[in-house]
Amino acid sequence: MSKEITSREQDYSQWYNDLVIKGSLADYSAVRGCMVIKPHGYALWENMRDQMDRMFKETGHQNAYFPLFVPKSLFEAEEKNAEGFAKECAIVTHYRLKADPSKKGGLIVDPEAKLEEELIVRPTSEAIIWSTYKTWIQSYRDLPLLINQWANVVRWEMRTRLFLRTAEFLWQEGHTAHATKEEAIEEAEKMLEVYATFAEEYMALPVIRGVKTESERFAGAENTYCIEALMQDGKALQCGTSHFLGQNFAKAFDVKFLNKENQQEYVWATSWGVSTRLIGALVMAHSDDDGLILPPKIAPLQVVIIPIYSKDAEAKKKIDEKVSNLVKELKALGVSVKYDDNDNNRPGWKFAEYEMKGVPVRVALGPRDLENNVAEIVRRDTKEKRSVSLDGLPVYIVGLLNDIQQNMFNKAKAYRDEHITKADSWDEFEKILDEKAGFISAHWDGTAETEEAIKEKTKATIRCIPLNNEMEEGRCILTGKPSRQRVLFARAY
Amino acid sequence: MSKEITSREQDYSQWYNDLVIKGSLADYSAVRGCMVIKPHGYALWENMRDQMDRMFKETGHQNAYFPLFVPKSLFEAEEKNAEGFAKECAIVTHYRLKADPSKKGGLIVDPEAKLEEELIVRPTSEAIIWSTYKTWIQSYRDLPLLINQWANVVRWEMRTRLFLRTAEFLWQEGHTAHATKEEAIEEAEKMLEVYATFAEEYMALPVIRGVKTESERFAGAENTYCIEALMQDGKALQCGTSHFLGQNFAKAFDVKFLNKENQQEYVWATSWGVSTRLIGALVMAHSDDDGLILPPKIAPLQVVIIPIYSKDAEAKKKIDEKVSNLVKELKALGVSVKYDDNDNNRPGWKFAEYEMKGVPVRVALGPRDLENNVAEIVRRDTKEKRSVSLDGLPVYIVGLLNDIQQNMFNKAKAYRDEHITKADSWDEFEKILDEKAGFISAHWDGTAETEEAIKEKTKATIRCIPLNNEMEEGRCILTGKPSRQRVLFARAY
Repeated sequence: MSKEITSREQDYSQWYNDLVIKGSLADYSAVRGCMVIKPHGYALWENMRDQMDRMFKETGHQNAYFPLFVPKSLFEAEEKNAEGFAKECAIVTHYRLKADPSKKGGLIVDPEAKLEEELIVRPTSEAIIWSTYKTWIQSYRDLPLLINQWANVVRWEMRTRLFLRTAEFLWQEGHTAHATKEEAIEEAEKMLEVYATFAEEYMALPVIRGVKTESERFAGAENTYCIEALMQDGKALQCGTSHFLGQNFAKAFDVKFLNKENQQEYVWATSWGVSTRLIGALVMAHSDDDGLILPPKIAPLQVVIIPIYSKDAEAKKKIDEKVSNLVKELKALGVSVKYDDNDNNRPGWKFAEYEMKGVPVRVALGPRDLENNVAEIVRRDTKEKRSVSLDGLPVYIVGLLNDIQQNMFNKAKAYRDEHITKADSWDEFEKILDEKAGFISAHWDGTAETEEAIKEKTKATIRCIPLNNEMEEGRCILTGKPSRQRVLFARAY
Repeated sequence: MSKEITSREQDYSQWYNDLVIKGSLADYSAVRGCMVIKPHGYALWENMRDQMDRMFKETGHQNAYFPLFVPKSLFEAEEKNAEGFAKECAIVTHYRLKADPSKKGGLIVDPEAKLEEELIVRPTSEAIIWSTYKTWIQSYRDLPLLINQWANVVRWEMRTRLFLRTAEFLWQEGHTAHATKEEAIEEAEKMLEVYATFAEEYMALPVIRGVKTESERFAGAENTYCIEALMQDGKALQCGTSHFLGQNFAKAFDVKFLNKENQQEYVWATSWGVSTRLIGALVMAHSDDDGLILPPKIAPLQVVIIPIYSKDAEAKKKIDEKVSNLVKELKALGVSVKYDDNDNNRPGWKFAEYEMKGVPVRVALGPRDLENNVAEIVRRDTKEKRSVSLDGLPVYIVGLLNDIQQNMFNKAKAYRDEHITKADSWDEFEKILDEKAGFISAHWDGTAETEEAIKEKTKATIRCIPLNNEMEEGRCILTGKPSRQRVLFARAY
């Protein structure tokens, strides 16, 4: 079979690429480091986007759209941010092509159409947005300003992987402005919780809420909150970040407001984002060696119905009739369903195809099933097969979809929880990393030097300091210096 | 009042800019030719996008996402298309910035990070998409391929105007592949009809369906279908185009399929798009000197309720109670509604503000209204004010919204129909253009030379040859040569 995929055990990394491509989520493109998001992958993203968008709007945010380009002088304004992204910027320098005199039909960059000031293709939009906020914010009455943008961004990456790390990716970026520090921090924490809720309830992906160490912070942030998830190979994946930006951008772009006491103050800021990278997390957390396993709440297609018959037109007609009602009833219950009676492919081929694409529930219906008033139901997550009465089948399927959603979360959570291991010595630390992997909960002396040394020795990084962390006296795993709390280490994507 | 806008009579062009900015649709940005779409404008775009997206999906299309960048060699491949867009391309030449040795904190383009091949920021995506289709299409079983993309594109324009002509804009671009010429033409026509339906039923904007002359065709197309609308100043605005691309892109990118007879054939193509330019059309077709007038079906907010009271807490409480029910009932009927009881602004200020933003229905409620069991209802389109019983008000409002939608269409259509004028001599043609404006229906000899000469003399262009045009013998308005049908001329945006 042409769609065979590499097993996880054989080569986890290849398994991932196989799934993404053969599961029809994305494809390589002619542009270095950029991917094509295929219809199945984009439909998944739409479902994720729409749900998050609802959650953003419910928490008072509005969408807007800011320019793709950032003039270099604005890009430079917040120094740390600029420094952090300078090495991965695509830069527009010219605005016209002209005929290539040396090649018929060829085009070359017109040297006379050089921009006076170069334009950076946004790697993130703080600079362009805060230069705009300066004209929008005058008084405390203009605050808070709660804006989100769905957009594409470009970060020039040398090593790319579909969804996980691509030069261009789709994301949302929230950019809010507040009158007080407390309110901005509250916003950053609130949005982290929105992300965590989305990951757990919709993606069935348990996450750890935490804060980054100083060296892992977003460039220009005072504090970076994050959610971290565990993949099936024991590596961690950062799924979303929410930043308290202090007054750094307000100062860089001179954004002040008149407070209630009639005094000028700099505005407080947050920004927060998640991207198509989440699709990579989804694939790696749940899928198996036969293909994708998608959570029902965001799956582009929840149920596929496949007729079983051997060119018997009479049998087919009876199946059609039954299915027609079933489809109507399922749709009325809000279930997305497809009847695949395409003659070009045999049932076995279809079974494999929808398994590959991660459709949560498969219904097969043949003449004998009809006689017995049953259908064969297979759930994608456990592959359990069951013969279920056609009476009340739609309600059964709704229950099954809920059950699959919950089961996927439970399974991922059990795996994650089993893979948070305490290490109290360096030997133990290295041993766990190499044998069991997952998160390692260990003491750290709080210095960037130690963090860097551990990273160099093991490729493990501090994923986060969990929120509501238990305080516990201990000694740093590497230096033996005193520590007051454990942090979570892991090798990560 | 700070929000005063220029009247249409005084300066139509300034009136438009005032509306867009003071109506909170968009703002200028720090990037030449690029705009910021503000929350009110973006919410309007979201409603338009979501409705069109439903219509695309109902006609069998799927969304996908292709890279922002097009390598120059791919961009060149379809010669006419490349030539058509070469003069307005933003070009990425470098992928890294580095510290400016001459300025602390400054950055310069790193000359060592020059791309081997320049990347064009997509002005349209035929090239990148057809280079991908080559790998997706092998056999007739892969056809038709019906894909749409929602994206940003960049066309470097020298003179820009908010929404109407900006360097970056948001749009959708459909790109379909077919086994036969007939099917591709049918698709291009079907999508034109989808656009026309959307414009008329949702934007309340009557449009003329037609085809472009050869010189106005999309670069690379065999035929360009279009919808054209009339603005209140008598100028035309192209609202959407749908192209039959023949086999041009298939040949440029070598996209062949094995047909049912087992022979290799080039694929047939269409592309079709509408953009945020539609918002400009919406503004110019319907609004008045007091602000925007938005069609209820796509207005971000359909109803605003404003309490009238003078710091009387008891009176306010009673209004609140009444409104709370009214809001619930309206929402249950699918109406978007906001209760603006913000204490910072007086009712008169709010009236003007929501008038400016084009909210279709305003409800004002004061203590005396409550005593009389009525509310004051003002419809935005005609400004008609009415005292309406609170009993059954939600249902009344739903009816009123429908009425406003219909009335806006009728009004725009009456204006448009009055402004299609036949001209049978050059004098008449020039006179109508200068005095009455609108579309002029006139004979043309069918040559590009005459078309160009008329354009040079009058700035009027052939907007389209209407579909289902009546055949009628006549003589060209300029050259007197024989002609078989009238075409529509106008000055245009």
